[in-house]
Amino acid sequence: MERAAQLAALSPRVDPNPRVGCVVVDADGVILAEGYHRGAGTWHAEAAAINEAIATGVDLRGATAYVTLEPCSHTGRTPSCARALIRAGVARVVFGQPDPNGAAAGGAQILREAGVAVEQDDTLAAASRDLNADWTFSVTHARPFVRWKYASTLDGFSAASDHTSQWITGPVARVDVHAQRAEHGAIVVGTGTVLADDPQLTVRDAQGRAGVQQPLRVVVGDTPIPDTARVLDDAASTLVLPRQSPTDVLAALHARGIHAVWLEGGPTLAAVFLRAGLVDEIVAYLAPALLGAGRPAAADLDITTIAEALRFDLVDAATLPSNEPSATDLRLRLRPTKEI
Amino acid sequence: MERAAQLAALSPRVDPNPRVGCVVVDADGVILAEGYHRGAGTWHAEAAAINEAIATGVDLRGATAYVTLEPCSHTGRTPSCARALIRAGVARVVFGQPDPNGAAAGGAQILREAGVAVEQDDTLAAASRDLNADWTFSVTHARPFVRWKYASTLDGFSAASDHTSQWITGPVARVDVHAQRAEHGAIVVGTGTVLADDPQLTVRDAQGRAGVQQPLRVVVGDTPIPDTARVLDDAASTLVLPRQSPTDVLAALHARGIHAVWLEGGPTLAAVFLRAGLVDEIVAYLAPALLGAGRPAAADLDITTIAEALRFDLVDAATLPSNEPSATDLRLRLRPTKEI
Repeated sequence: MERAAQLAALSPRVDPNPRVGCVVVDADGVILAEGYHRGAGTWHAEAAAINEAIATGVDLRGATAYVTLEPCSHTGRTPSCARALIRAGVARVVFGQPDPNGAAAGGAQILREAGVAVEQDDTLAAASRDLNADWTFSVTHARPFVRWKYASTLDGFSAASDHTSQWITGPVARVDVHAQRAEHGAIVVGTGTVLADDPQLTVRDAQGRAGVQQPLRVVVGDTPIPDTARVLDDAASTLVLPRQSPTDVLAALHARGIHAVWLEGGPTLAAVFLRAGLVDEIVAYLAPALLGAGRPAAADLDITTIAEALRFDLVDAATLPSNEPSATDLRLRLRPTKEI
Repeated sequence: MERAAQLAALSPRVDPNPRVGCVVVDADGVILAEGYHRGAGTWHAEAAAINEAIATGVDLRGATAYVTLEPCSHTGRTPSCARALIRAGVARVVFGQPDPNGAAAGGAQILREAGVAVEQDDTLAAASRDLNADWTFSVTHARPFVRWKYASTLDGFSAASDHTSQWITGPVARVDVHAQRAEHGAIVVGTGTVLADDPQLTVRDAQGRAGVQQPLRVVVGDTPIPDTARVLDDAASTLVLPRQSPTDVLAALHARGIHAVWLEGGPTLAAVFLRAGLVDEIVAYLAPALLGAGRPAAADLDITTIAEALRFDLVDAATLPSNEPSATDLRLRLRPTKEI
């Protein structure tokens, strides 16, 4: 089971499909074949393992397959994995996470009906959910998970009154932002941010080198942006979505198989998503500095009294080396407090 | 030496005088007498130990005295401790922190001139400085240490637009504030805070019971406050300082033997102290909540560009249970970043 989870972790982090690993063993626990999903359009993990067995002339009849996620029942771009396991003669299937996907679910039932012994394992399920948190969210909520990132001073300003904002946080926070961007299918900003900061919105490393895979860049808002905007360069794909509600934006991205959105503000767009209850996590980079005035992290939220404050749970707090030798930035992760 | 530091820790935390412990031992290290300072107007630690020896008929001639702070040279409300040790016949004195106080310093010299062996110990000095951080600061800077406390949402608001602020942070943060108030000689607010929130500014425990020792309550500002203001009740002493600069305020409190000031804002007074470079530490209670608008933690600091931001070093970050079962407030401790 551990090996199956290890294999699943080899699957691409950002992909329309979930990360899945599969190990097939004989009665003595000797590994006969293994496989993992290498990304949309390629073989599912079970099929990859079966193909390996075929290629090496190994007989899987009577074997046990460990799969991190319930084998799929449907035939899409690839054949149904439940049926492939049956055809291979596998006698027992232990899977982790039940498939939350309506269309793909039912694999366990198909296997059972074919006389295969089927077990569900909670440890394996937890490993799969860890590896597929955003995918699981997007399948069950029919929209991408929204992670709002902002960087501000302690007193909540993302830029000074003269619009200068470079650099509120230190180099480590900036590298951290790029690493997190890379784990999302899309980076979403408003036209205000494009006009104010002209960001390129690509994934780059500390030396400024572009990452191999780039998230989709999404610009939301009615204000026209100039053709020369860096977000329109050819470093990555860009989608411009004028005049759309946050629900529409997320529907458009969900339709493209995007499970997680990295919302980089600015204050107007952040407020729109916050007011709609469509921020699932906040990643706040706080610089130990005060400005007293400037551009707020989120614009007016239509809140006038303390009882209406948007409340969050602090999931994680970390310190990151900052601009000054002895200083550190704070990175906070927060999730909306559930009503009880 | 450890025992001397333990004794010093028994001295009152908030007092015009430093916390000092003294242990006198014979050649075999057997304790002959010990003492600590119990507060202004009472015996210094050395005198307390010598008095104990006299009361129990113990001869201190030829003994070694361990003192956390350099014995004082001057005669004030109590006699010079250096001379008292000489009179008692002590042969050797090991002290920790050199006395930073111009008037009291020179005790080591007096002892040496009288033929007493004198050693200074760095470990004991560090223990003394830990126990007397605010006192040491106030002696060397000729003004109290200023600790600015504020509570705000993540986006920097201390109250909503309708002025409601109860409660931004949770009960544990509030108890923590009272515990910290108790370690300061004075709590300073502006008239704006008195008019907006009518705080009592006393030290109370979680059950609302008043502490035995109450810091001096100080109200700064020109706006008249009503006689019915809770800050003027008889729960503690109150000093009203209209029309004074932060330097004048601190001079007035220094003259009263106050080493540390707990500045509770509001935004106007905090900004005045921040602009004057007279905030030595910030204690920020951040609630994991967003308001989008409201009363800022600090009013306009006359900063218009990012390069002018007031930069701080994060000294400590702690989480405190909050209002919601799963939520936590953050308590940050920051100190101004020193120019390099």
